[in-house]
Amino acid sequence: MNEKFPSLSDIKRTHQRIQNYILHTPILTSHSISEMAGAELFFKCENFQKVGAFKMRGAANAIFSYRPEERVNGFATHSSGNHAQAVAMAAKLAETKAYVVMPKNAPKVKISAVAGYGAEIIFCEPTEEDRVRTCNEIIEKTGAVFVPPFNDPQIIAGQATAAKELIEEAPDLDFILTPVGGGGLAAGTALAVNYLVPNTQVILGEPERADDTFRSFKSGELQGVKSPDTIADGLKVSVGELNFEIIKKYVTDVVTVSEKQIVDAMRIVWERMKIVIEPSCAVPLAVVLKDKKRFSGRKVGIILTGGNVDLGNLPF
Amino acid sequence: MNEKFPSLSDIKRTHQRIQNYILHTPILTSHSISEMAGAELFFKCENFQKVGAFKMRGAANAIFSYRPEERVNGFATHSSGNHAQAVAMAAKLAETKAYVVMPKNAPKVKISAVAGYGAEIIFCEPTEEDRVRTCNEIIEKTGAVFVPPFNDPQIIAGQATAAKELIEEAPDLDFILTPVGGGGLAAGTALAVNYLVPNTQVILGEPERADDTFRSFKSGELQGVKSPDTIADGLKVSVGELNFEIIKKYVTDVVTVSEKQIVDAMRIVWERMKIVIEPSCAVPLAVVLKDKKRFSGRKVGIILTGGNVDLGNLPF
Repeated sequence: MNEKFPSLSDIKRTHQRIQNYILHTPILTSHSISEMAGAELFFKCENFQKVGAFKMRGAANAIFSYRPEERVNGFATHSSGNHAQAVAMAAKLAETKAYVVMPKNAPKVKISAVAGYGAEIIFCEPTEEDRVRTCNEIIEKTGAVFVPPFNDPQIIAGQATAAKELIEEAPDLDFILTPVGGGGLAAGTALAVNYLVPNTQVILGEPERADDTFRSFKSGELQGVKSPDTIADGLKVSVGELNFEIIKKYVTDVVTVSEKQIVDAMRIVWERMKIVIEPSCAVPLAVVLKDKKRFSGRKVGIILTGGNVDLGNLPF
Repeated sequence: MNEKFPSLSDIKRTHQRIQNYILHTPILTSHSISEMAGAELFFKCENFQKVGAFKMRGAANAIFSYRPEERVNGFATHSSGNHAQAVAMAAKLAETKAYVVMPKNAPKVKISAVAGYGAEIIFCEPTEEDRVRTCNEIIEKTGAVFVPPFNDPQIIAGQATAAKELIEEAPDLDFILTPVGGGGLAAGTALAVNYLVPNTQVILGEPERADDTFRSFKSGELQGVKSPDTIADGLKVSVGELNFEIIKKYVTDVVTVSEKQIVDAMRIVWERMKIVIEPSCAVPLAVVLKDKKRFSGRKVGIILTGGNVDLGNLPF
């Protein structure tokens, strides 16, 4: 076991640490979508999580793992959206400041939510380089502590608690699927499954148009994403190094899906389940519907990662 | 007590009769919407009901209150949408035929859902007269039994079970709000509240552009709606006579809201609660947000009536 990988007791301690700052989200089923898929599907609804996304788990863990006296200068991060909201909200709960660097083309609904939680927003160019540079400037100026978006053991342990809850309520799943962007949720899920239900297979879904994890997984070498252009805006970032080490070791497969498959799956969830999910979050269902044979007759857990969409800009 | 009004034991018997054909829907709360309203709101989520609307309750009760040998020629109805789906689904569960007369301008998503449940659809002009005429022709030809959309004791008793469930889980509400179209849900709710928690006030919400119940309630005389033109397509019909008698007796007030207030409330629910509701169903929240003083600091139950929207034709 790699000593940087969060252990089972790290994940358990994390779950206790954050329990008052997160919601225990429900697992929903849909007769008609299960029938459509030919499998028994269990949806872990992190779209109902605080700030509308699983990111609240990792951010709360990162921030509350610091001692109160270490939190006084606030926290800083860069994010295209949900992590930004999560850091803003967690900092508010910790009664300290949040500085959030956001690309100027981030969805409006996410920008106004971050502002709504009282964070200070600093806009940057929509490149990973400019995000990091701008964030470093802020940290230097304010003494704020950096909250990494995904490539970090505390973040991974936080995101792992979603799968832990899913497994506790549905311990006999054959598969658990998550989308993969930076890989915090993917790595956390893979670790939780490995510790708690090692016979369950973890499969990651990724947009064809941001397929860095797919290429990295197939080649065994970490590869970055070049000019990602997908409706699944939460999955545009490249997978983190630590996350990829965990994914390489504990994930069964990475499957890519087209933009049309993502939008179709998103629409199915909205129409049949009457819940709002964002495009990133439709990717795992798109994987199940693309490869029905693989999942036929099996029990499949899907982590619905978030519900923050710009209602004025829907793909329907 | 008017003997045509369903009694408490009618409603209890109804609830037992339909329990295997409906879902016991959850009550959700939203910290941010309650904060926005300055009241404690409890949303009874009938958008998660079978066929995506409370109408399943009344239709199931109407159909299953007939003996099996009375069901052989099937059932017929006319409806702009959710009642049509409910009759189609309930007839399917009763293993008999459904004939559904729908106005040719009904939302596509509702037409295809009705077809999906195996009903035979007969299109008519979008007027109440043509609906009734076409439906009578079908009944004459097939021997099918008519399932009235709302103005009927069995339908009212069925719809009353939504409020009954809400009251059983949240017995200390100061107010319960529903929208009012034909008035089946409104009357059923008013009766359930009168029998079970008579101190709770029932308030109905109605679009300004289809304000027949408002005018009837204020004048004491039943008045029809003329050329209703509202986004709340489920509320275009005029309130039924029997329903109005119940509403007049047991409802505290009827409040109208504008199209903008409806769309704003709908958007708030989608964005904050991450659930899909149809415009009709946003009307009661629009009432609460319009008249905050009245509900300030109180416990308010809202029946979210349905989630069948045409995603290709949203008002955002």
